[in-house]
Amino acid sequence: MSRHRISLRNVVPAGKRAALEQRIFYASSAIEDYRLVEEAGDVIAVEVVTGPGADPAELARKVDLLICNDVLPQRTRRPVVVWRSPHTADQAEGDVWARLERTAAVVEMGEGLYATGGLFTDLLSVLDGMLSEIAAGTFGAISYRYPTLISTDVLRRGGYLDAFPQFLITAGRLHADIDSYGAFVSGLESAPDTGAYLDRFGEHLGHCLPPTMCFHTYRQLEHRKLPGDAAVFTARGKSFRFESRYRRGVERLWDFTIREIVFVGDGERVAGQRTEFMRETWRLMDELALPGHAEVAHDPFFGNEATSERALAQQLMELKYELCLPVEGGRSVAAGSFNLHGDKFGSAFRITLPDGTTAHTACVGFGLERLTYAFLSQHGLDVDRWPASVRRRLQSRIPAEGPHRQTEGERNGRQRIPRG
Amino acid sequence: MSRHRISLRNVVPAGKRAALEQRIFYASSAIEDYRLVEEAGDVIAVEVVTGPGADPAELARKVDLLICNDVLPQRTRRPVVVWRSPHTADQAEGDVWARLERTAAVVEMGEGLYATGGLFTDLLSVLDGMLSEIAAGTFGAISYRYPTLISTDVLRRGGYLDAFPQFLITAGRLHADIDSYGAFVSGLESAPDTGAYLDRFGEHLGHCLPPTMCFHTYRQLEHRKLPGDAAVFTARGKSFRFESRYRRGVERLWDFTIREIVFVGDGERVAGQRTEFMRETWRLMDELALPGHAEVAHDPFFGNEATSERALAQQLMELKYELCLPVEGGRSVAAGSFNLHGDKFGSAFRITLPDGTTAHTACVGFGLERLTYAFLSQHGLDVDRWPASVRRRLQSRIPAEGPHRQTEGERNGRQRIPRG
Repeated sequence: MSRHRISLRNVVPAGKRAALEQRIFYASSAIEDYRLVEEAGDVIAVEVVTGPGADPAELARKVDLLICNDVLPQRTRRPVVVWRSPHTADQAEGDVWARLERTAAVVEMGEGLYATGGLFTDLLSVLDGMLSEIAAGTFGAISYRYPTLISTDVLRRGGYLDAFPQFLITAGRLHADIDSYGAFVSGLESAPDTGAYLDRFGEHLGHCLPPTMCFHTYRQLEHRKLPGDAAVFTARGKSFRFESRYRRGVERLWDFTIREIVFVGDGERVAGQRTEFMRETWRLMDELALPGHAEVAHDPFFGNEATSERALAQQLMELKYELCLPVEGGRSVAAGSFNLHGDKFGSAFRITLPDGTTAHTACVGFGLERLTYAFLSQHGLDVDRWPASVRRRLQSRIPAEGPHRQTEGERNGRQRIPRG
Repeated sequence: MSRHRISLRNVVPAGKRAALEQRIFYASSAIEDYRLVEEAGDVIAVEVVTGPGADPAELARKVDLLICNDVLPQRTRRPVVVWRSPHTADQAEGDVWARLERTAAVVEMGEGLYATGGLFTDLLSVLDGMLSEIAAGTFGAISYRYPTLISTDVLRRGGYLDAFPQFLITAGRLHADIDSYGAFVSGLESAPDTGAYLDRFGEHLGHCLPPTMCFHTYRQLEHRKLPGDAAVFTARGKSFRFESRYRRGVERLWDFTIREIVFVGDGERVAGQRTEFMRETWRLMDELALPGHAEVAHDPFFGNEATSERALAQQLMELKYELCLPVEGGRSVAAGSFNLHGDKFGSAFRITLPDGTTAHTACVGFGLERLTYAFLSQHGLDVDRWPASVRRRLQSRIPAEGPHRQTEGERNGRQRIPRG
């Protein structure tokens, strides 16, 4: 382990400190940890921790490049809050995460990966059910189970590869060839680095892991004319983002669950539906007695000279709102987002309305692990103290999906399991 | 497109014809289609269709190698049937798949990928619920939601990489480096082959996509001593296998859904639990009025000189049974399997019993898309003609998850969607 101090060629003002912190691990995978050095509020240097053999001059160049390309051009804007919960944060228990771990209701399964069980899973299903009811009941959404794999070409045409290269997770396979399989198997045992060995015998599958659900919907509608003047789809599924060392518990996972609702229609209609879904969400947050707020946001575009302009445009046009909910430790998670796309995807995937014009789209997505954890952070693990509508739904779930209203001790009473 | 006739150096007897057909696409990815040429029941040649530029001599060598290594050593055994359904196949409708496609209840989303909606999804949930009730009710299984990504090291230590290299689907990411991201983004638009371009800028993530759920359970229990003398886990999740050109509808997907139950304990106990779960499954098949049978089976090991011995040992020791259900077109799918592992995984992952001995494991898995399609193949799409217990469960599902007991026309009445 080495420690290097990088004096910045361009100091980073306090207002852009967060933009630096959100990106620094993508500057170089050699950076294992870092500390910002400040002077009069500006960041003037970064101390980085690396493995052995890292070249300090190269690291400095990469960090300076990151600051020039992706940090300094970010326009800092005062947060624009569009909703505030009437409920105040009251995290009475304060040790919810520790207790979830202790009872194996959350189990770390690798970098950015968690298994969930027991009360956590049951609550996640209940909360998803409440969102699904809004989607189906109020908006008439059609529900699909999508495959997990998504065509790489769809992500490329949808603009994901060049906007978010840092998040991309691809799928590969070994060369489909008997000589290659034979060589792979016979050398596997002595291969010192399985990852490099797989890269040597592998190739891209033609598919990636999806960063959101909505790309599946565009793929499904590609080259089609809607039979009516609007359509709403909903899906729940796994999404994947390479969050590097930014992973943290279920607050920031590499592999997480989204409930997504996609609106397709003319521009005015989908904008109205987004607004209406936001109102329904504020109502639900009130019913769940959750504190939090919603604000104008932008996507973490990366690696492209146009990224800061795109982020700014997104904010000025209020194309993205995020639902921010407090969790333990004084942190906050973006548990939902409400997005307008204009005709970007309708045009990329040639989705048209009955009159032949290009469809506009909007989508609303909820990170179910984050939402669940925000709920538990606020209300604790004692089900009896939860809002009545959640308790009722938990109780009405069929027994096969797990016992409810038990204490932690009772829950695993029949069959104690080792902590993960 | 070229067509080449490969005269086989070793003829393949009729009894091993299936073994050849199940593997030939893994001999070389240049093979796009094939036809076997027979003489007096033996396969004496293969006509293969390839893209331009394939070398016929190389192809012949690869096919001969496949036959020597992976086909001829297979010991053909007479099927050992351990259960036969009392119900007879009665696929009255015969056009179920066509109607599922027409009503967009199944939508092809790429090679080996399908989205499912409407009645298909609802039925899949009901059938999974019935299996889950057996798991939780009769066996006290603890339920987990696992991440999708599984550590590559877990698959390696579990013996998957060298036993099934042909099925493996890996996960990758781009090099986490600002120079690399920049070069990737600036060259993307002019890259002629996105797959090769991603390979150039990418590296293995350290994780793969799981071929079954049970590896997650072993990972969870790794290095642990069970607090009791046995434990049962269940999970539903996505599994992935590169099935090459063998993909077919939802009968053989690259990306499918498994309900899995894993038994951990001493050898006698887990063997007994496997037997008991098989009995419960036969009871459920009877309740579902499904025809079919179960037989001794073996895994499609590949690419290793020991594969045929392993397959034979598996059969002789009856370590694997498969539940075979008929589907439309006179075909059959393996919709479930019941497996004994001895202490293979307990030993690989150092899972021990309270007395310090190595745990034995067994697992039972169901392919939910296959099971659903087998049900629909037999009973058709008219819910009123389905077995009562399934109808009742469909009706009791909450409205948010979709309307039931509607005709096809009514189902999508509110919002017609374009066919996928």
